[in-house]
Amino acid sequence: MALDEFGLIRRYFQRVPSAGTDTGAGAGVPVRLGIGDDAALLDLPPGESLAVTTDTLVAGRHFPLTATAFDIGWKALAVNLSDLAAMGSRPQGVTLALTLPEADPDWLAGLSAGFFTLADAEGVPLIGGDTTRGPLSLTVTALGSVPPALALRRDGARPGDLICVSGTLGDAGLGLALALDAVPAGVANAVTGLSAAARDHALARLHRPSPRLALGLALRGIATAAMDVSDGLLQDLGHLLAASAGTGGPLGARLQLEHLPLSSALTALAGSGDAGREQMLAWALAVGDDYELLFTLPPAAEKRLPALADALALPLACIGRVTEAPGLDLRWHGQVLDVALPGGYRHFS
Amino acid sequence: MALDEFGLIRRYFQRVPSAGTDTGAGAGVPVRLGIGDDAALLDLPPGESLAVTTDTLVAGRHFPLTATAFDIGWKALAVNLSDLAAMGSRPQGVTLALTLPEADPDWLAGLSAGFFTLADAEGVPLIGGDTTRGPLSLTVTALGSVPPALALRRDGARPGDLICVSGTLGDAGLGLALALDAVPAGVANAVTGLSAAARDHALARLHRPSPRLALGLALRGIATAAMDVSDGLLQDLGHLLAASAGTGGPLGARLQLEHLPLSSALTALAGSGDAGREQMLAWALAVGDDYELLFTLPPAAEKRLPALADALALPLACIGRVTEAPGLDLRWHGQVLDVALPGGYRHFS
Repeated sequence: MALDEFGLIRRYFQRVPSAGTDTGAGAGVPVRLGIGDDAALLDLPPGESLAVTTDTLVAGRHFPLTATAFDIGWKALAVNLSDLAAMGSRPQGVTLALTLPEADPDWLAGLSAGFFTLADAEGVPLIGGDTTRGPLSLTVTALGSVPPALALRRDGARPGDLICVSGTLGDAGLGLALALDAVPAGVANAVTGLSAAARDHALARLHRPSPRLALGLALRGIATAAMDVSDGLLQDLGHLLAASAGTGGPLGARLQLEHLPLSSALTALAGSGDAGREQMLAWALAVGDDYELLFTLPPAAEKRLPALADALALPLACIGRVTEAPGLDLRWHGQVLDVALPGGYRHFS
Repeated sequence: MALDEFGLIRRYFQRVPSAGTDTGAGAGVPVRLGIGDDAALLDLPPGESLAVTTDTLVAGRHFPLTATAFDIGWKALAVNLSDLAAMGSRPQGVTLALTLPEADPDWLAGLSAGFFTLADAEGVPLIGGDTTRGPLSLTVTALGSVPPALALRRDGARPGDLICVSGTLGDAGLGLALALDAVPAGVANAVTGLSAAARDHALARLHRPSPRLALGLALRGIATAAMDVSDGLLQDLGHLLAASAGTGGPLGARLQLEHLPLSSALTALAGSGDAGREQMLAWALAVGDDYELLFTLPPAAEKRLPALADALALPLACIGRVTEAPGLDLRWHGQVLDVALPGGYRHFS
């Protein structure tokens, strides 16, 4: 079946918001002009800054070749919305640049369904895009808005601040090992012993991460710094500390890793012996695909976390503190941890 | 030489505007936060809408494999700025998502030089991006601003409006034939007879198109509709007429093709006999890579064009009129033209 570019876009992705229509994009911001002109036109709330982020997903590199079209569509959007969440910004629109080797209607229908399932859940309109022929990749640009004084930047952490994370960590690492049929031998028995539900949960966390948009909005005016965990907790924390290093020189962190928030699958793994604990730590600390938020809080704000977690129905855990001493001091029940961890996900390294 | 993702971006593309710094981006709009956080933050002029466009260039499809890194960097930005120009919007910032098979420093330096030569000339800051490993492609998202009532949309053309184009048409088509060493036999002698300067001009028009940003701004409040010529004049005019079709039904156009604005190379070709004239028409009407603006004017505005062309140092030509009768009526010195033209550039067709 042959479809030209225009046919493709129309059939699977063009749901043009009418001029001046409130598309339900969060704060009732109208899309003045959607797909179909040289550019889309979007109105932002007065006094708010535009937040912009872009991420590309390449087949076989950012998702396994076995990933479904639905999951690819979901994830391409999710990782970009996660960046908007990490800025405390409200999503207002997204563009999708899609490069495809061929126009397979079933595959495109799946991709569209995954993309729009998340977009509709978050009230984010698709306002523009491009379709080209070539090796499969997707580049999403997400546009949000935030009052500039309330933006959650990376550079505001101060010594003594609490280091907190949302959700659970390590599930996507386990999910990737399952998806690639590459569970390390040392934990093969423990992973085999997991329930089907636990394995499905880990795969869902890998393929369909939840951007923490409501948390980002709730942390406005509370968190001193925030970012999403996309490259691995330790590497991302390093970025946050480096950005926050001020005239006082570099900052460090002490983490109490027994406080890492874990799903039941990772908890089971952590309790299965030394190999299990080390693998749990590797997945929780050095794999970034969980797309949770990492944020710092002034100590006085800690008491607000339980109510916030309840309101969002999302676990929020404090796992350590920012220190004046540089470097990462990792502890496990008080003992200094000296475990070799693979580096975070870096290209061209 | 191995460079990780962060090193690559820093070395060749990160020129972080400081917080609150006026980066010279047109109207003095500050980039609050550039590359390095989860998202960039940009302030738009109060009361203006955000204009957003995104286009992907895939190696071997949107540029010849022989194109230099400089030209690729220039063109990836130019085609997106051209879309902003066609909306009458002022560029405020761009993002670049770069997928590369390998990190070749010389090649990256060339790409960066081409990209920033144009970006600096137009005062557009690079505010974000992503670098991934994979088959070569570039996706740029360009962000501009425009008072919504002044945006140049495609849907405002009315019967009787003049149909105008900027610059010259067909050069990129000749340039592509030269770049691919694929000049049609019927015009081989005529093309061989061109001066080296004329051939270089055609190649430059292919590889380094000039986004008509100043023209887009000048047409605010004057043009009834506008778009850039990216898919071929006839195909793009068809899109404009389709978008402008109102309750009165579809619109058409009558074009006097002897008024097509041509460079000296194309003029020479058009004068070299029937084969030359037909090839000139094919390149001028059915190849879109010239990235000129196509716009419509109410008849009373025609008298303003010469002064505008002088002020911009850019030829502006009226080549026909919008008609109530649907379809394209193509004339060459009064005679109806019935020449088979290859379709515009369409993917998956």
